[in-house]
This record gives sequence, C-alpha cells and structure tokens, in this order.
Amino acid sequence: MSQSLRIGVAGLGTVGASVVRMIARRREAMLASGLDLTVTAVCARDRSRDRGLDLSGVEWFEDPVAMARSSAVDCVVELMGGAEGAAKDTVEAALAAGKPVVTANKALLAKHGAALAAAAEKAGVALTYEAAVAGGIPVIKALREGLAGNKVERVYGILNGTCNYILSRMEREGLTFEACLKDAQALGYAEADPTFDVEGFDTAHKLAILTSLAFGTQVDAEGVSVEGISRVQPLDLRMADELGYRIKLLGVAQATAAGIEQRVHPTMVPKSSAIAQVMGVTNAVTIDADAVGELTLIGPGAGGEATASAVFGDIADVARRILRPTFGVAAATMAPPPRAEMQRHEGGYYIRLTVHDRPGVAAGVAQRMAEREISIESILQRRVEGADSDPRGRSGRPVPLVLITYAATEGAIREALDAIAKDGLLAESPQLIRIERE
Amino acid sequence: MSQSLRIGVAGLGTVGASVVRMIARRREAMLASGLDLTVTAVCARDRSRDRGLDLSGVEWFEDPVAMARSSAVDCVVELMGGAEGAAKDTVEAALAAGKPVVTANKALLAKHGAALAAAAEKAGVALTYEAAVAGGIPVIKALREGLAGNKVERVYGILNGTCNYILSRMEREGLTFEACLKDAQALGYAEADPTFDVEGFDTAHKLAILTSLAFGTQVDAEGVSVEGISRVQPLDLRMADELGYRIKLLGVAQATAAGIEQRVHPTMVPKSSAIAQVMGVTNAVTIDADAVGELTLIGPGAGGEATASAVFGDIADVARRILRPTFGVAAATMAPPPRAEMQRHEGGYYIRLTVHDRPGVAAGVAQRMAEREISIESILQRRVEGADSDPRGRSGRPVPLVLITYAATEGAIREALDAIAKDGLLAESPQLIRIERE
Repeated sequence: MSQSLRIGVAGLGTVGASVVRMIARRREAMLASGLDLTVTAVCARDRSRDRGLDLSGVEWFEDPVAMARSSAVDCVVELMGGAEGAAKDTVEAALAAGKPVVTANKALLAKHGAALAAAAEKAGVALTYEAAVAGGIPVIKALREGLAGNKVERVYGILNGTCNYILSRMEREGLTFEACLKDAQALGYAEADPTFDVEGFDTAHKLAILTSLAFGTQVDAEGVSVEGISRVQPLDLRMADELGYRIKLLGVAQATAAGIEQRVHPTMVPKSSAIAQVMGVTNAVTIDADAVGELTLIGPGAGGEATASAVFGDIADVARRILRPTFGVAAATMAPPPRAEMQRHEGGYYIRLTVHDRPGVAAGVAQRMAEREISIESILQRRVEGADSDPRGRSGRPVPLVLITYAATEGAIREALDAIAKDGLLAESPQLIRIERE
Repeated sequence: MSQSLRIGVAGLGTVGASVVRMIARRREAMLASGLDLTVTAVCARDRSRDRGLDLSGVEWFEDPVAMARSSAVDCVVELMGGAEGAAKDTVEAALAAGKPVVTANKALLAKHGAALAAAAEKAGVALTYEAAVAGGIPVIKALREGLAGNKVERVYGILNGTCNYILSRMEREGLTFEACLKDAQALGYAEADPTFDVEGFDTAHKLAILTSLAFGTQVDAEGVSVEGISRVQPLDLRMADELGYRIKLLGVAQATAAGIEQRVHPTMVPKSSAIAQVMGVTNAVTIDADAVGELTLIGPGAGGEATASAVFGDIADVARRILRPTFGVAAATMAPPPRAEMQRHEGGYYIRLTVHDRPGVAAGVAQRMAEREISIESILQRRVEGADSDPRGRSGRPVPLVLITYAATEGAIREALDAIAKDGLLAESPQLIRIERE
C-alpha cells in the first residue's frame, strides 16, 4: 500500500524546476519505497518562460496563497524566498489550512522561525527545511534525528559557498578579496550586490537555524555577532599558512557559561582539521556533542539539484506522515537563547598589527598584552622587502607584527588593542581573526 | 501529548550500558520533543556484574527471546551481536510478535538482512540499524532518507577504525604493520585475534549493508571482494606519500556497466580528498549521487557512547511510529545485486614490483604492460642504499620499481604481472594497490 501525496510547488526557479523534475524522475523508486508522489500544482510569476518542464495535468496558479489553499494540494513546497510577503503568506496559509510545508527559505525561518513552528504545531503538521541550511548536506536531519541522544556543545561550519570560494582562491593564488569577488560574480557564485553573502548575513541566517535545533532555543538571528570577509587580506592568508592554519568564514554556535554564543567571522582553523580541507563552493558542518564526540558533514551548499535533493528528502518524510517538532522540541518549551556577549567570548586570537618600524615597538605591544594577562603563543615579525628598508630596524616605516594569543576574552583583547593604539604604536587599524580549535 | 515507548535492551556490554544511561539522561529533552522513553526490561548473561546502572523497576531477563515476547516491552534493542544464535532468535521473535527492532548487529544483517527485512515488512514494524555501520555517523539515515531523491552511483568509506588506526601510525611513524597491530591490541583497538578487522571482513559486512541501501538490492556480503591490510608495507606508504596519495582500507560499492562492484581493499586516495584527512580510529563515508554530487560524513566509528548515539536515534524514530522499508525499498522488489567480477574492475593501479637490479628490467616490465594496452602514468625507481649497491645498476640485487597506471582492468593488470613473473624479472611477488579517484 502506497502513501500518496499531492504536492504544490511555489516558485519555479532553478531549485523549483529541479524539484519538479526530480519528483518525476524518482517516481518508480519512490513507489518501490511505498510512496506515490505527484506534483499537482505549481505557482510562478511568468507562465510563458520555458523551464523545460512537463507540466501537463498540473494546475497553474498565479497566486501562491490560492495554491496553498487548493483542495488539489496536500503539501506546499515553498521555494520563492524572502522573509516577508508572498513566501510568508503562503507558508502561513498552508499551515492554517492544516497542510505540511517544506521550505528552503532561510530568511523566513531566521526571522519568523519561532512563530511558524508554533503555527505548525498548532495545526499538527510538519514544517521542514533541510534545504535552508548547507544545501544538499542533510545536517538538519542529522541534528534533529540522528543525534537526538546527544547534548550538543558546539556546532560550526562553512555555510556560504561564495565566501569559501573567495577565500580559497585568495589563499591559493595570493589574490585580493576584490579580485576574487569579481571572478565569483563573473562565474555566478556571487550576486551583483554581494553584501548579503560576503558580509556574513547569509551565514548568520543559517547559523541561527542550526542554533535553534542544536540547543532547543528560539531562532534568534538578531543575536548573531556578524563579521564578513571583506577585510581579510592576502597577507593574513600567508601568515595563517605559516602558522599552520587556514582562514574560513565560519558560523559558530556554542554553549558557554555566559550563555549561547552565536558568531560569524573569518576564522583560523588548523590545517589538519577536516573543515580546513573544504575548498571552493563546498559547505561543511561540524557538530560537537557529548555522546558522539565530533561529527563532520561535507557537501554541496548550493545548486539546483543539490538543493532539490534536500527538498525531496523532506517531501518524502512528509509523505510518510512523519511529524516532529519543527526545531526538535515543542514550541512552548522554546525560549530565546541567553545571549553570550561577544566581549565575553574566550578563545585564541590572531592579531596582525601594522606598527612603525622602530626599536621598542614589539616590547610596547607585549607590555599592553601582559597588563591584561593575555599570553602570547607566538610572534611573527617580517622584515619588509624594499630599497629603503633599514637594516637597523629604525626606518619608522609601517611593518606587520603578528601575534597569536592563547585563550583570552575578546574584551581583554579589545582593551589591549585600544591601549596600543593610544600609545601611538599603530600605523593602521589592527586586524583581528579568531582561532577555532578542534 | 507524548508518544511513549517501553524498551527492552538485550545485551548490556559497553554499548548496551551506554544506551540505558542515555535513555535516562535524555529523559527531559525527549519529553520536550514529545517522546516518553523508558527502559522496562534488560537481558544479559551475568546479573551480578556491576555496570554502574540504575536498574530499579527494570525487569531482568536471562532469556532474550522471552524478553522480546514480554508484554512489558514495545521495542527490542538487540546489542548482543553475532550472525546466529541468540541475536537472530531474539530479532525474529520480536518481529514475529509485531514489535519493532533496533539493532547494532552488522553480522546479523550482512548474513540475514534480506530475510529479516521481509519479516519486518510482513509484521508491519520497523527494523533499524544505524549503529551497525560507521558507529556514531548517521549514514544510514542520510542514505535512506536524506538522499531519497538521488540515484546513488558509488558509496565508499573507511569503515573500520582498527585498520585506519594501524595505517595512520604506519604512515606517520614509518612502522611495520606488525608493530602497529601490537600497539592497537595493547590499546584495546584490536582484538586478540585481529583477523576479522585487519583482513577486511568487518568492513565487508558494513559495506554489504550500505550497498543494499544505496542500490535497493539484497544484502550480499558473499559478493564482496575482500583484501585486508596485512600486506601493506611501510615502503608502500612512503611511495604513496611521494605520489600524492594516502593508503586507506576502503569499502567501495559502485554501479558499473558490468553490475555492482563490492570491494574492500587497501586503496590509494588523493591526499587532498576529505577522506584522506581521516586519521586514527575515525570513520568516514562518501556518497556519490546524481543530484547531490558528493557528500562526505566523518565521525567516530566505534565506542560505547558514539554507538549508543546511533542506537538512540533509531529508538526515537521507532517511538514516533515511523515505518520505512528496512533497506529503503519494499522487500519484494529487492533482488540480489548483479555481481560485477573483480577482473572487470577498471581503475588506476599502484604496482610495486621487486625486480632484479640489472639493465633492461624496466623496459621488459613496460613491454608487458604495453602488450595489454595498459598506460603508465608514472614510474618510480629508487636506488637502494647500501654498501654493495652498484652505481652501474647491474648488481642484480632486488630493488623496488613502482608503476602508477591509468585506468585499466584488473584482469589485464593480473595478466601482465603473470607474464612479468614468467619472464623471471621478479624477485618477490608484486604488490598491487588500487587507486580510488574522487
């Protein structure tokens, strides 16, 4: 006996078209696994566009909310995107009509996750979103189901392929951020306005969803401390290499004594770690949990087919009438996460100062660090090549001075850097990159 | 409203005790997620042993079959192990009584998977086994559910921590297989009789289960071509390193035009691949599939808590009354996999010959390869250090000659090696290690 599901797909962009094709292509295999999946309705703005889809017998809607309410649809797949407007209206209409929803919409969940989870629970239907985080990697399923026996301690990952592509090329080819961004735009990996990706906001949305699942708290995207990759320089990547690290834009959620840290920033990761091997547009997520220890998942973070793969997994679960709390626990038990202030974050830091090349500068810097009990693990000072370099080190020209600290609080580091700046030792504002250890 | 499940645990070794503790420890979290899980019965041979468990109010059985039939048990967790005997009887009794079964028993599934899947289906209950493959890594869930929209092309992985530990140490420290095995035994990573692990049979069991899930075929452990790591020498690891590879014991299942290949053997993997970074007792699985592309999961392959994590995930799914075909498709649709003969396997090969150091040997070897249209990608010949080495290369002493081939069939390679041996060029039998490319 097959369980059948009539599916309405709202949004026929790259992912939507892939989902429609996949449902047709996997028909026989799904019947063998006991599921009879059919697309009965679709909705998109432009009906005339050729998407290469066979939509015979499929009802066309111009209004996604009308599609969500249609009696020909058992389950709504929302692939329009956007935190407000049509996407939100459609998901709300479907849940209100008692229909399960599958969505890939990270912005919607990042902003309205808690309310939508409550609405789904009230309606007694599933709201699933595997495709919203890390594309084709089944990390939502792993966290929500596979690791149900675990208390999660930390979850972190490379959640934005654009940034990882740019950092990978900067590292391999010694190029600037600006040059790599231009190439990423030409290849279609980055938008014309790249801010949302490169300044870390996309990663923050995805991280906020992972945090909710990992810790059973309400989605709190506004609680994420966000820093993008536009200030990372080729010199930082070279220094990282020398010190045994790579630089990745990570989203990190971590339970600490001060609360739950949610932070997105360029991060030094040990070269030997699995996540350091992840190059190009690939995504990766590592979960640290009490029973399983460390689990890392690596795969495609975007692309029509890979994202459709995640959407399809959700559809199959909905077809089996599987109902779980949206974020792993009942909506009523979810509170906003206790926010740990970034100033209280404790970790190792890479600090690249641009100092004036003259005697006593390194000592002055070290002194300010010592006053705040910040221990220095290593110092790297490079002589600047060039005709007017001074072999006695008294040129006064700006030169880089790199420090790696042992664990210290962000607050103490910031204070020390302020003091160093006041001492007049800095020729430029300092570069600060956090180190994430395994 | 909570869904409740009364659990009987058969087998209270390291994993069983961890499962019992985890169910108690996760009680509040599970209630928040809508599940009321209780261990109501346990079964083990020695009741007097102190396992550090609070078993008050839990019924003790000496006979696991009686436990499976007890009216106080809704779900049987089988952690006794073994392909026959008590484990098989218990699982069969539970299914016959219409009770879902969670097991970590790879040997049982490798031998009786098809029959047990049919029995579970007939009874209309779940038979789940996340812990049977790759310990704490939720790879069964990923393949069966997360990737439901995909046609799998290949699945391969490091599925035995003992072998990976030994190979990692051989590589890092230049030690022999025998020395590393001894250390592994001292650390409890290898059994007193290590054959099952180091000769690849454990990997073969796990692979056969993955093959069934990946391709919808009956479990066919006898169809796996198996070769262990005991013949790998430190020299092979050094050569691999020079050539840009690492050696891992992989289980590989692959759909080919000739049928489904299932093979376990030491394998050269590119150093830059995610799987090459996996060192020590850690496991990893990579899945190549049409929609998602490549997905890699890395995590602990063994250990009480990590294995219990996988068992617990299954228990939680059973508690939600989730029912899926055991190997992804209905038992009736599953046929034995069409076996692809190993002779037909096509890939790159690392061939290390031990030849007599005299003129014309390399040419003779190359000639025999050329006759079978085997293309050589690289040749490495190392002069042997030592007092009696002959600078003219005419000492006649045994020296290593390493060839890397482009894709060739195993049959052609074997024929060429036979011909080379008949020509009297070899001082020792050749070493052959397959190359797995990304």
